[in-house]
Amino acid sequence: MNILPSNVQKLMQLLQRIPGLGPKSAARVAMFLLTSPKGYTKELGEVIANLKEEIVYCKMCFNIASSTPCEICDSQERDESIICVVEDPLDVLAFENGTDFKGKYHVLGGVISPVNGIGPEDLTIAQLINRLEGGKVKEIIIATNPNIEGEATAMYIKQEILNLSSQALKVGKRDLKITRLARGLPSGADLEYADKTTLKKSFEGRTNF
Amino acid sequence: MNILPSNVQKLMQLLQRIPGLGPKSAARVAMFLLTSPKGYTKELGEVIANLKEEIVYCKMCFNIASSTPCEICDSQERDESIICVVEDPLDVLAFENGTDFKGKYHVLGGVISPVNGIGPEDLTIAQLINRLEGGKVKEIIIATNPNIEGEATAMYIKQEILNLSSQALKVGKRDLKITRLARGLPSGADLEYADKTTLKKSFEGRTNF
Repeated sequence: MNILPSNVQKLMQLLQRIPGLGPKSAARVAMFLLTSPKGYTKELGEVIANLKEEIVYCKMCFNIASSTPCEICDSQERDESIICVVEDPLDVLAFENGTDFKGKYHVLGGVISPVNGIGPEDLTIAQLINRLEGGKVKEIIIATNPNIEGEATAMYIKQEILNLSSQALKVGKRDLKITRLARGLPSGADLEYADKTTLKKSFEGRTNF
Repeated sequence: MNILPSNVQKLMQLLQRIPGLGPKSAARVAMFLLTSPKGYTKELGEVIANLKEEIVYCKMCFNIASSTPCEICDSQERDESIICVVEDPLDVLAFENGTDFKGKYHVLGGVISPVNGIGPEDLTIAQLINRLEGGKVKEIIIATNPNIEGEATAMYIKQEILNLSSQALKVGKRDLKITRLARGLPSGADLEYADKTTLKKSFEGRTNF
């Protein structure tokens, strides 16, 4: 006997694929949708169903966008001599909302992760290197996450850029800065509760006061 | 400047209405959907958009179903003399999966909750009382949740049934049992960590051994 209608069962199965939703929370979300106004479920469903059709990846920075090149890459007001390299589109959103960075971005599409079978060739690293040709770019901020995979990816990208630079230096002079976001205590932190690595990094990177 | 395409922004807004999803987790779910295979988002979207069209509420028990009366209400193999009263369809699912109950159900559609503006008239209590007329029902298991609102709703329903019974008793004889699920220690529990109310209830309800 089917206790629930087949489409509700189907919905629960599909929702369970979303990271962070187990069988119980998928069931709760399904119940919420069942008891929501019809207009809401209709709208949400249609947005999800047509999601991929209206999305493109910017051919310059590989961010998700409604057109390519994206608004940021296309903008004349943004400094093209500085590129901030991030893991995914949410990081671009975080920088745009949280900083006054006015350069360009490059979205890697992930990090190098042998465990998950993701190598450098699965990311947009080669396309980033291509963007450096021509000599317009003066600084690369490698803003991958400060964890093991993010650090390893940052190291890999740095090495790739240095390989390119040494070749490029033979031909013409080039001054390319490679930077990484500062590590240290987060604002509002309590020294007592800071973890070892953070404390060590904040010591190493201490600044003149 | 719109950093994200408008449909992705829309998606994030809509997802935030789901209980348990804040702005950050809604953004993560949106990113997951963006990077999922197109077949998956298409299927999920269509199931959600058409959810309401394929769902009816059983006119007997008010459970969600694909037809009315639902399979359980329609079944000749289930004991119609015993009704298990639950808050929502997920509870029916839990009983069907976890017990061998072979009676019928009645789905209230929530609990009495003055804070949320939900009164007895918003639930299917009157319809439950109607089902008791005729005298076929011998037991009502009030299986609302063992919390304040669930208890209050159970008390209310009990009183309504008693009001009906005393009237009915004037006409003919009637033997209607009203029961509530046992309270006590959950299986695998550790006495040390049991909360006061649970411990008290398990004392009060101790059984012969």
